[in-house]
Amino acid sequence: MSSHAPHPVLLDAARLAALLERIAARIGPARVVTDAAELAPWLVEGRGLFQGATPAMVEPATTDEVSFIVAACAEAGVPVVPQGGNTGLVGGQVPFGGLLLSLRRMSRIRDLDPIDLTVVAEAGCTLHQVQQAAAETGCLFPLSIASEGSCRIGGNLSTNAGGTAVLRYGNMRELTFGLEVVLPDGRIWNGLSRLRKDNTGYALKDLFIGAEGTLGIITAAVLRLYPAPRAHATTLTGLASPEAALKLFQRLRNVAGDALTGFEILPRFGMETVLTHIPGTTRALAGDHGWYALAELTSTRRDDDLSALALEVFGEAFEAGEIEDAVIAASEAQAEALWKLREALSDAQKFEGGSIKHDVSVPVSRVPHFIAEAARACEAHMPGVRVCAFGHMGDGNIHFNLSQPVGMDKAAYLACWEGFNRIVHDIVAGLGGSISAEHGIGLLKREELPLYKDPVALELMAAIKAAIDPKGLANPGKVLPGG
Amino acid sequence: MSSHAPHPVLLDAARLAALLERIAARIGPARVVTDAAELAPWLVEGRGLFQGATPAMVEPATTDEVSFIVAACAEAGVPVVPQGGNTGLVGGQVPFGGLLLSLRRMSRIRDLDPIDLTVVAEAGCTLHQVQQAAAETGCLFPLSIASEGSCRIGGNLSTNAGGTAVLRYGNMRELTFGLEVVLPDGRIWNGLSRLRKDNTGYALKDLFIGAEGTLGIITAAVLRLYPAPRAHATTLTGLASPEAALKLFQRLRNVAGDALTGFEILPRFGMETVLTHIPGTTRALAGDHGWYALAELTSTRRDDDLSALALEVFGEAFEAGEIEDAVIAASEAQAEALWKLREALSDAQKFEGGSIKHDVSVPVSRVPHFIAEAARACEAHMPGVRVCAFGHMGDGNIHFNLSQPVGMDKAAYLACWEGFNRIVHDIVAGLGGSISAEHGIGLLKREELPLYKDPVALELMAAIKAAIDPKGLANPGKVLPGG
Repeated sequence: MSSHAPHPVLLDAARLAALLERIAARIGPARVVTDAAELAPWLVEGRGLFQGATPAMVEPATTDEVSFIVAACAEAGVPVVPQGGNTGLVGGQVPFGGLLLSLRRMSRIRDLDPIDLTVVAEAGCTLHQVQQAAAETGCLFPLSIASEGSCRIGGNLSTNAGGTAVLRYGNMRELTFGLEVVLPDGRIWNGLSRLRKDNTGYALKDLFIGAEGTLGIITAAVLRLYPAPRAHATTLTGLASPEAALKLFQRLRNVAGDALTGFEILPRFGMETVLTHIPGTTRALAGDHGWYALAELTSTRRDDDLSALALEVFGEAFEAGEIEDAVIAASEAQAEALWKLREALSDAQKFEGGSIKHDVSVPVSRVPHFIAEAARACEAHMPGVRVCAFGHMGDGNIHFNLSQPVGMDKAAYLACWEGFNRIVHDIVAGLGGSISAEHGIGLLKREELPLYKDPVALELMAAIKAAIDPKGLANPGKVLPGG
Repeated sequence: MSSHAPHPVLLDAARLAALLERIAARIGPARVVTDAAELAPWLVEGRGLFQGATPAMVEPATTDEVSFIVAACAEAGVPVVPQGGNTGLVGGQVPFGGLLLSLRRMSRIRDLDPIDLTVVAEAGCTLHQVQQAAAETGCLFPLSIASEGSCRIGGNLSTNAGGTAVLRYGNMRELTFGLEVVLPDGRIWNGLSRLRKDNTGYALKDLFIGAEGTLGIITAAVLRLYPAPRAHATTLTGLASPEAALKLFQRLRNVAGDALTGFEILPRFGMETVLTHIPGTTRALAGDHGWYALAELTSTRRDDDLSALALEVFGEAFEAGEIEDAVIAASEAQAEALWKLREALSDAQKFEGGSIKHDVSVPVSRVPHFIAEAARACEAHMPGVRVCAFGHMGDGNIHFNLSQPVGMDKAAYLACWEGFNRIVHDIVAGLGGSISAEHGIGLLKREELPLYKDPVALELMAAIKAAIDPKGLANPGKVLPGG
């Protein structure tokens, strides 16, 4: 993978020193980090796919400081790479010679309004911090992803984060009313609107969300809250196939409507992997099943009997031969135990050796077809490879992960990543799908984009990038092919 | 208002004739309309604020024909103005010398998938046509606006249309998964994605939605459907003030959550105007009230007792002294009668003489403050003016309409529009609001934009416009100030 990394930007040492001095004079010398040991953890991303390099990490505390730094870098012709919690999965947060700009000190919740159902959060707030602030006022901030304890709002916005509640509440984009952005030349766009309706020009907010820092640096956002649900039903169903899971999904959606907030699937191999490797997990259904579906129902009405609703649907599905067994959590602890079976899967897979991962989406109706075809093709490509296709079926978003054949050398296996990419992504493309459903493009998928994205879309992206970042200093080398 | 109209584009007669001939050869001479009588209805918008002019109206039937026409116009340097149902309220669809491109023949529903909950509709489909197609398969396309019988999907997309169900389902942008667009040079961007999650680059779809044709012509879209609701409760409440309405809104939202799909308010003057002028309307509550709130609850669960839910909330609100009276529709006919009281208001106002209108939004929590302050200021500015502030309180979107003083000359009254704009829009801006909540900018508010929009946002818009439409031929003179 490291062959994908762009060449480091070469900077003139004297000019660089002058730039860092200028920045230190503004934000304090302690906030310009050049010590190699201090930098090290911020230069490599979670999976270790990319090793970054930077002359310094700067840690501004205010929007004005970010603006000053970016303007100074623009004058000096120095690229800037923004970083939040460094939890991104595609390398978008890794610098290659440019200045690393950490948003972590900008972690203030500026405002929370339970009538407007809005929270104004700075980019460096952790997702958990925002969830907590909402919960304390009887509200819900619905974004929920595995890294929520350490990922930051700026990164959630820049990658348009998804997760397990998108089915009901949408991605980060749908959860955002307004933004504050520092543009690549240092100008500040104050778009911190709290409005639910505003048709006064182009959708600038939507453009910066998901741009992975290539159009500027998001410093704060107005996020959308919901009234906190007061009733829940968490259910696990055993069934024969993704086709059966799709049928159950339709049944639940048609009756429960918005009350259906999550619908996840995992295969038997995934369930067994979790039960084998993750302490404290226990089998929730008596028998073995080819597939499992985890469905979550919620309601703002305290006395809403969602268990009865689920039971009724499960009864009909059982009669129709579509499901084999089901359990409805009788307590919050049981609900958490069911979710753990799903959420521990990524960690559990690490015990099974190398894992080649694909974060893809297809139209919901094509999920069973996709899983069957991609599994067949991958097993033919490498006999013994263990397919673990799981995830957000309700959104058509499958994490199509491939565990190495038992006993194979891990490095030799991971060297086959490109071949599997081609197989899986070609099938995805044939079904009108996406090669990155929720993780983004970053560096990891940048060179794949031209293979699958409409060429006119790529031309439009390049034109917009050139218009907003004409010097190419905003997180260069990310997202845009050949950029 | 007509002083706002840009100067007609002057075209060289011979070059124009050659261009029209070229287009006629491709789409058929009958589809190049130059007859003045045939053109007349398409050159003036509903309120008669602008009188347009065009050398010809062309009527392509396919995306390829649109592409051909736009490319030919780009070569000849001729502007193109797209038009759907000609129901826009800000003049965006009126040509001033450019070619008028009607999308009305592109009215095919290409596909409808009740599993994916998607419909692929061409730009010329009426909104009603899409609603009907959805209903026939047990689905709901939730966009609902007064002009739904004649407005077209392309216009709904280009103005990011809103309406009475935004509270629950969002604007047109939130109801769109993908687009097909003909760019200003004739290239076709095929972005007809059906995906609920796709993080592969910039949010191009969102950029074209709401751009009012200034970045290209939307020819088709993948729209989002919902399972059709099976239970409804339509309610009308009499209360003392917008403050009381806001309290009722919070009570309903906190308990009903997503079941609350609409929350509209109207003042006593509005209610009396409807009852006086609109045949077939009847008083729904016995007494008189200062304000009225219409709340709609829906659910996918057939046996969901929403009336009981509403009754419970109304009981608490009554106990707290927040509401004076309430009625819950006992039949579909009664529900329609309640909605008519709200929906007939725009028509009813015409009987009260000239009406100066503002389509504004503020944060939901500021609606009562806004209405009080703006009413006071307008009444001080012109004693006798009759304030009719009504609309989508749940979205913070108020139609702040001013009926002329009784007996005043209509033309003299309408000449005061600019003065009222400044008063109302200054108050809106002071509350962090928008001067166009759902109608767009078009020509009507183009020169006001610089007074209220963040200057950096305007610079970004101009840069994007120049990048995508460097020749400035896509609906010139609209949206962008001085454009």
